[in-house]
Amino acid sequence: MIRKPDRLNILYAQSGGVTAVINATAWAVIDAARKARGGVGRVLVGRDGIVGVLEERLIDTAKLLPADLARLKMTPAGAFGSCRFKLGTPETDPARYRRILEVLEAHAIGAFFYNGGGDSQDTAQKIAAFSRTEGYPLKVIGLPKTIDNDLYGTDFSPGYGSVAKYVATSTLEAALDVASMSATSTRVFILEVMGRHAGWIAAASALGQRRPDDPPHLILFPERPFDPEDFVARVRETVESRGYCVVVASEGIRDATGRFIAEGSGKDAFGHAQLGGVAPALAGLIGARLGYKHHFAVADYLQRAARHLASKTDLDGAIAVGRAAVRLARAGRSEVMVTLERIPGSPTGFRTGSIPLGEVANRERRLPDTFIRPDGYGVSALGRRHLAPLISGEAYPAYRSGVPDYLRLTPAEITKRLPPFVAR
Amino acid sequence: MIRKPDRLNILYAQSGGVTAVINATAWAVIDAARKARGGVGRVLVGRDGIVGVLEERLIDTAKLLPADLARLKMTPAGAFGSCRFKLGTPETDPARYRRILEVLEAHAIGAFFYNGGGDSQDTAQKIAAFSRTEGYPLKVIGLPKTIDNDLYGTDFSPGYGSVAKYVATSTLEAALDVASMSATSTRVFILEVMGRHAGWIAAASALGQRRPDDPPHLILFPERPFDPEDFVARVRETVESRGYCVVVASEGIRDATGRFIAEGSGKDAFGHAQLGGVAPALAGLIGARLGYKHHFAVADYLQRAARHLASKTDLDGAIAVGRAAVRLARAGRSEVMVTLERIPGSPTGFRTGSIPLGEVANRERRLPDTFIRPDGYGVSALGRRHLAPLISGEAYPAYRSGVPDYLRLTPAEITKRLPPFVAR
Repeated sequence: MIRKPDRLNILYAQSGGVTAVINATAWAVIDAARKARGGVGRVLVGRDGIVGVLEERLIDTAKLLPADLARLKMTPAGAFGSCRFKLGTPETDPARYRRILEVLEAHAIGAFFYNGGGDSQDTAQKIAAFSRTEGYPLKVIGLPKTIDNDLYGTDFSPGYGSVAKYVATSTLEAALDVASMSATSTRVFILEVMGRHAGWIAAASALGQRRPDDPPHLILFPERPFDPEDFVARVRETVESRGYCVVVASEGIRDATGRFIAEGSGKDAFGHAQLGGVAPALAGLIGARLGYKHHFAVADYLQRAARHLASKTDLDGAIAVGRAAVRLARAGRSEVMVTLERIPGSPTGFRTGSIPLGEVANRERRLPDTFIRPDGYGVSALGRRHLAPLISGEAYPAYRSGVPDYLRLTPAEITKRLPPFVAR
Repeated sequence: MIRKPDRLNILYAQSGGVTAVINATAWAVIDAARKARGGVGRVLVGRDGIVGVLEERLIDTAKLLPADLARLKMTPAGAFGSCRFKLGTPETDPARYRRILEVLEAHAIGAFFYNGGGDSQDTAQKIAAFSRTEGYPLKVIGLPKTIDNDLYGTDFSPGYGSVAKYVATSTLEAALDVASMSATSTRVFILEVMGRHAGWIAAASALGQRRPDDPPHLILFPERPFDPEDFVARVRETVESRGYCVVVASEGIRDATGRFIAEGSGKDAFGHAQLGGVAPALAGLIGARLGYKHHFAVADYLQRAARHLASKTDLDGAIAVGRAAVRLARAGRSEVMVTLERIPGSPTGFRTGSIPLGEVANRERRLPDTFIRPDGYGVSALGRRHLAPLISGEAYPAYRSGVPDYLRLTPAEITKRLPPFVAR
């Protein structure tokens, strides 16, 4: 089964939720490979992540025009697609693992780059182990990515800093709006942000605070059980003392019994089960118990796609990760994930490192207790100091006719060399 | 009652919902007055709009430091506050009208500037008429402002262009996100935007389209009755042909019987009446009828406070309006609202004009039929051409520590000269 190509051909795929800067990582891989000239051969990309690898739907990045590449770097979401698809293990799903190796071999791939969160790092590790068992020479490099920032082993995950900047800025802006009008209008404003298991994104809403009593007044973390009575009392107290109250809530908050607050039980105007959502639930609670005029916003995909407000630090991290992956593969490294590490003494400086994939897989990094204010409703000074560098710097996209001039790519796939894959 | 000051003293107040650029209009009034030197005396500002005028809670803008003024220009929402308070008529509420004149006279005000939407222009007209009746010499100038863009007599209202840029960009970004993942994840995405009576804001979501079939695929306007069956059929058809469907919905859409779609009838996790919202209702409809995985975002205040993504054209309009008000008052004009007019032949050029307040008051400008696509779910080419200039250009705020360096003002109020006002 062994066929060693002269030059290192790379297959890159990304998986899971996309981010504002994941395309910048893809760009950096392509750019570093081009600059390596003799060192690297082709860079292929799996369409829609691992699904495209299984189906041999591959894109040859050599076909991308320089203008497309420049746009790729500044375009949010996944220009090559991504997927929600969890591969089993080589034991439960040997056909798919074998197919992946067949596709890699058919295109003489020497290095597989997998960009994603904890699940993807786990998949990368399994592919590496399987290729070892099968005797196929393959370098496997994991690239970190997740807006949730819950990936183990890296100081931060590209994607998070840009969401954090968006959430910090949006909270600051909306709070100014509410403050302007609270005497005669809305008293309570709730912003729902992502983060099902970890409160990193919610915590970012505190980064616009200059003084401890600046909004947001209450942050609801999934790391803390939600107590409706205590919450209602604190909202009342805040409105009575400040005139208004800004709340930022993680989508993943749960009550003391472990039930998600987002699980509504109502019916909409059409008689259908009402989709829950944390913000509508909290708004209903405030309306019923306090009677204050209230408004809510749900940031949803807007927050993770907001390339127009990307963090320069985050973008730099995304690019550094892509370049480092090429460097590691060329140096013969394998079964590691690229990491980002703070440079001691430098406020915003980061460098890349690596960690064995096996150490990363299936571990989750929650917001440390020391980052949460003792009362459970805010971010500690330590937490703010840790997070602030990640939203540092602006990195605007180019605009055309008033909107960002993003890449809108429908890339051609290369000619298939294998028969179609039929699972099972 | 007549005491004519040597120089023109101005009292400025804003009313109704705030915008991303209303502070820029206030800044322009202050700046133009300062530059007029001998021509203009003091510029006072009513705290929280007309409420602060009634309560004699006034700010002397001479006290603002140059650094604060520079920040004022780039800060969203109302640094001096605004209010939701509708003054009656001089017949139904003579005490308040008399009080306003007393406050004006106590501070030797010669010109009253009122910045707001249709209601505010109506109030301005009534104050002008009352001062005439009472023999108090007063110039009254209306300044246009509304994110809804439904103000009569002006080509556009400052505040709208920035919301429009935000909605166009956010729709584009979220659509790229959904497109990346739709093969294995979310198929339908719904963005709820403001606009209770007019679809100007929803229409702006089309400004990121390059081709007719680009997202958003379906726009729901308050100008068209919402037909659930037709909507469901179109969502299905779009997902089947394109793989995903992006919907932008005005908060103000209603069914054929006139009932707001936002009026939910459910209960939340706490057993309280569920706050409705158009996006959750549409999401529930899609889930129940089509079973597609769906997500929704509610932009709420984020859209009208998004100074970080302001339209340069909109900002320029806001500033032009403030300067023009000072110019008109100095020229002895009264009972007019400043307008913005397109310069024929110039794609993005505007100039100021004026219109009698009496012609503006209580008229509402809906999205013209010719701007809506014949099928009712999109914007016509004519509409896009009309709206595109309004989102043209970027006008970024300065940043500090990763977030915009907005003004956070708690301005001191001047010493009162009158006893407190007790209504009735």
